[in-house]
Amino acid sequence: MSALAPHVGRAHVVGVTGAPGVGKSTSTSALVRAWRAQGKRVAVLAVDPSSPYSGGALLGDRVRMGDHATDRDVYIRSMASRGHLGGLAWAAPQAVRVLDAAGFDVVLLETVGVGQSEVEVAGAADTTVVLLAPGMGDGIQAAKAGILEVGDVYVVNKADRPEAATVRRDLRSMLALTERRDADWRPPVLLMSAQSGEGVEEVVEALDKHVAHTRESGELERRRVRRVREEIEALAVATLRRQWEGVGRDGRAAELDGLAERVAAGDLDPYAAADALLGSG
Amino acid sequence: MSALAPHVGRAHVVGVTGAPGVGKSTSTSALVRAWRAQGKRVAVLAVDPSSPYSGGALLGDRVRMGDHATDRDVYIRSMASRGHLGGLAWAAPQAVRVLDAAGFDVVLLETVGVGQSEVEVAGAADTTVVLLAPGMGDGIQAAKAGILEVGDVYVVNKADRPEAATVRRDLRSMLALTERRDADWRPPVLLMSAQSGEGVEEVVEALDKHVAHTRESGELERRRVRRVREEIEALAVATLRRQWEGVGRDGRAAELDGLAERVAAGDLDPYAAADALLGSG
Repeated sequence: MSALAPHVGRAHVVGVTGAPGVGKSTSTSALVRAWRAQGKRVAVLAVDPSSPYSGGALLGDRVRMGDHATDRDVYIRSMASRGHLGGLAWAAPQAVRVLDAAGFDVVLLETVGVGQSEVEVAGAADTTVVLLAPGMGDGIQAAKAGILEVGDVYVVNKADRPEAATVRRDLRSMLALTERRDADWRPPVLLMSAQSGEGVEEVVEALDKHVAHTRESGELERRRVRRVREEIEALAVATLRRQWEGVGRDGRAAELDGLAERVAAGDLDPYAAADALLGSG
Repeated sequence: MSALAPHVGRAHVVGVTGAPGVGKSTSTSALVRAWRAQGKRVAVLAVDPSSPYSGGALLGDRVRMGDHATDRDVYIRSMASRGHLGGLAWAAPQAVRVLDAAGFDVVLLETVGVGQSEVEVAGAADTTVVLLAPGMGDGIQAAKAGILEVGDVYVVNKADRPEAATVRRDLRSMLALTERRDADWRPPVLLMSAQSGEGVEEVVEALDKHVAHTRESGELERRRVRRVREEIEALAVATLRRQWEGVGRDGRAAELDGLAERVAAGDLDPYAAADALLGSG
């Protein structure tokens, strides 16, 4: 990582998120194809926040590789992130850093967007694409899933379905009412059919436009610093957790266990236990 | 919290999780009704991992309260957990502790089960109920969502639908192939219709049976100690993050920011930055 440090910061890190069923894999594949047509080298990291086993992730790779298996300028890898405190924040940035330094022009981070993960992917990316599809639930659901704050580009996939225009209109009016972290950028809402390829180029254009806009405004740099902050924090926390949980040589071994037993027995409250843990650090 | 410490550990903490659309609110309401019929005092904490705003959570309360608004022995509250590192691990245990000490017999933790959250709810509860419903996706989806390891009791809701029996059969065969944390307990798969009330009593019985089983085997105590461990860790991490991020009086103010800027500029790698952050602690 120390040797890589001077070589990072050139790739455009694109996060792609969306609820199960919106066609994330197909959309990723379509985007990869569009970038490849421009001669760009593309790496895809598919992060599965629900899978604790790399076995499942590997299976996912094989399925995904189908379309691009013989292309040496496309790298596709699935990662399982469950079980890491902080999920994406911990594991993905390291992988992105390696791929960036390896000279990929685009690093696409794909994750299922429910709960915390779409916030994390937005934190890890320069540009975040939120995928939607007709028939996946109404606007209220969208608001609930928290997607309105995180997307830089919104894409209604499966645009051949009749309700796509309605989804787009509803989303636009909800976005107009949403306070966003980057007030200078009004996220476009595009229609796409990943299956047929229609609208894919426009999405790629919007992504390029967004990164150019944020580079100029200074937002890109701010996002990257913020991202690194979270990464450093996550690494520091991971180190501490290893100390707290590990069987140390220095007698601090079962300290957390001992505190937990006292709290469970009602002899101590958790705040006091946390202070004790830190006080002995 | 210190004053509450001696009064906790009496409530049965039940986690209820399931994908959006399985009927979580209705099921929770049906379970509450069944417990109330037994004279038990019930608290419900609905944790929404996708909502960062308490405003949304409050709206949720009003919708939920409908059925039990005039019952003084039912307490219902929604919590938004997004934005906390560790989500449920941080906020919910504190609330559970207060409700437990206040004398509620059952504390029901309800959360949408996608990604990390259903693992967290399982960590926070004595007994975890995983809700499914016909037509929500096949077995592969279930495996992907990671529900097979976390449930102590599985409930197929909307059992009046014809495919309910198939869901139950598929789930049973997948569970038979799954390695679980408590090898002594074979999780039952029950059919229920929260709407009509059919099967609700059997679910409550299964929950009672599970907590009795784990109390006897020592697993309940182990789970509670494990839960407290995570809570202590989360509190300690939250304290450290405040130190790292806060504007301190002692000049450590922008230290994390400074490290992040150096990493973003390629002068430092994130591991070295994390070490520097900890070294100065």
